Amino acid sequence: MKPSCNGIDTATLQATVDAVRSRPSLARFRFRVRNRWVSGSRSQGWITEFFGAGQEHLHRRGDMVLHADQPAVLVGGDEAPAPIEHLLNALAACLTSSLVQAAAREGISLTAVESAVECDVDLLASMGLPRGATPKIRVMMRVKGEAAAAELEALVDGSRNASPVYDIITNGVPVTIAINTG
Amino acid sequence: MKPSCNGIDTATLQATVDAVRSRPSLARFRFRVRNRWVSGSRSQGWITEFFGAGQEHLHRRGDMVLHADQPAVLVGGDEAPAPIEHLLNALAACLTSSLVQAAAREGISLTAVESAVECDVDLLASMGLPRGATPKIRVMMRVKGEAAAAELEALVDGSRNASPVYDIITNGVPVTIAINTG
Repeated sequence: MKPSCNGIDTATLQATVDAVRSRPSLARFRFRVRNRWVSGSRSQGWITEFFGAGQEHLHRRGDMVLHADQPAVLVGGDEAPAPIEHLLNALAACLTSSLVQAAAREGISLTAVESAVECDVDLLASMGLPRGATPKIRVMMRVKGEAAAAELEALVDGSRNASPVYDIITNGVPVTIAINTG
Repeated sequence: MKPSCNGIDTATLQATVDAVRSRPSLARFRFRVRNRWVSGSRSQGWITEFFGAGQEHLHRRGDMVLHADQPAVLVGGDEAPAPIEHLLNALAACLTSSLVQAAAREGISLTAVESAVECDVDLLASMGLPRGATPKIRVMMRVKGEAAAAELEALVDGSRNASPVYDIITNGVPVTIAINTG
């Protein structure tokens, strides 16, 4: 096996998979984000640390910040991507990273992965009106690499099962909200 | 009604709600994100335009860019937030913006909205191993404003129904993936 494939250290990847296979609890992660309202529809998110592979970790770049806003037509300032746009990018990034890691595990060199994601969503409920149609998401993925088309298609298919964001968005997950007004 | 509440132009907000009430198709939006693999687990997302309120719109800041990566313990470069962290921030930002807009519609001034979101997720499937437990998301929201605690709590409750990202994550939505290997 090559020491690196698709920019991923394949020896470390294989060691990680082996470690998790022998001790599955290492695959339990807890990701955390803090978010603060700025003004109007704007908010700022901070990402600092997470738990995984049996211990706490700090992200090596320190606090990473994400900005969100609503577009002007939704009475926002349009200073940053809308929350749904963040969600769509999370999906594309997760599918892409899952695909690239799966390819690296199989020793398939990729040369390009591009995706276009779109979401049809009815915002009636956002305006306090009765709920509209269920949202729908479409992903168009273009994948090039040193493998037959059928092999690349199988990789994309596999990346659905490997992507936690795809899992969350397609199957839905329980979300509890605790409120503190103190 | 005050001309502005929580940094939101309440006259425009009311006019928007009235317009949508009389013509519900104005609430149909299509959000779009393009994403490109960089190397390893890194990808870059672009957000440029969207459809809504009956027409196409360009975001006024031009292309907005979002970076994602995986942490080192997941064999990434840890150069940017992980896809799941992007998803969690999308949720916090959407709940916050829904809450602030609902408060503005009711003329309730808010002074602070902060949230901490965490997601327990088992990444066995990401490593090509049999799927682990269903992910769980918890949101802790701290809300302060010029209203009784019960009123603020009702606003947070309402923001669940108003938030399209909360809707997508809790109920799940169909995601189709089209593949192009050409």
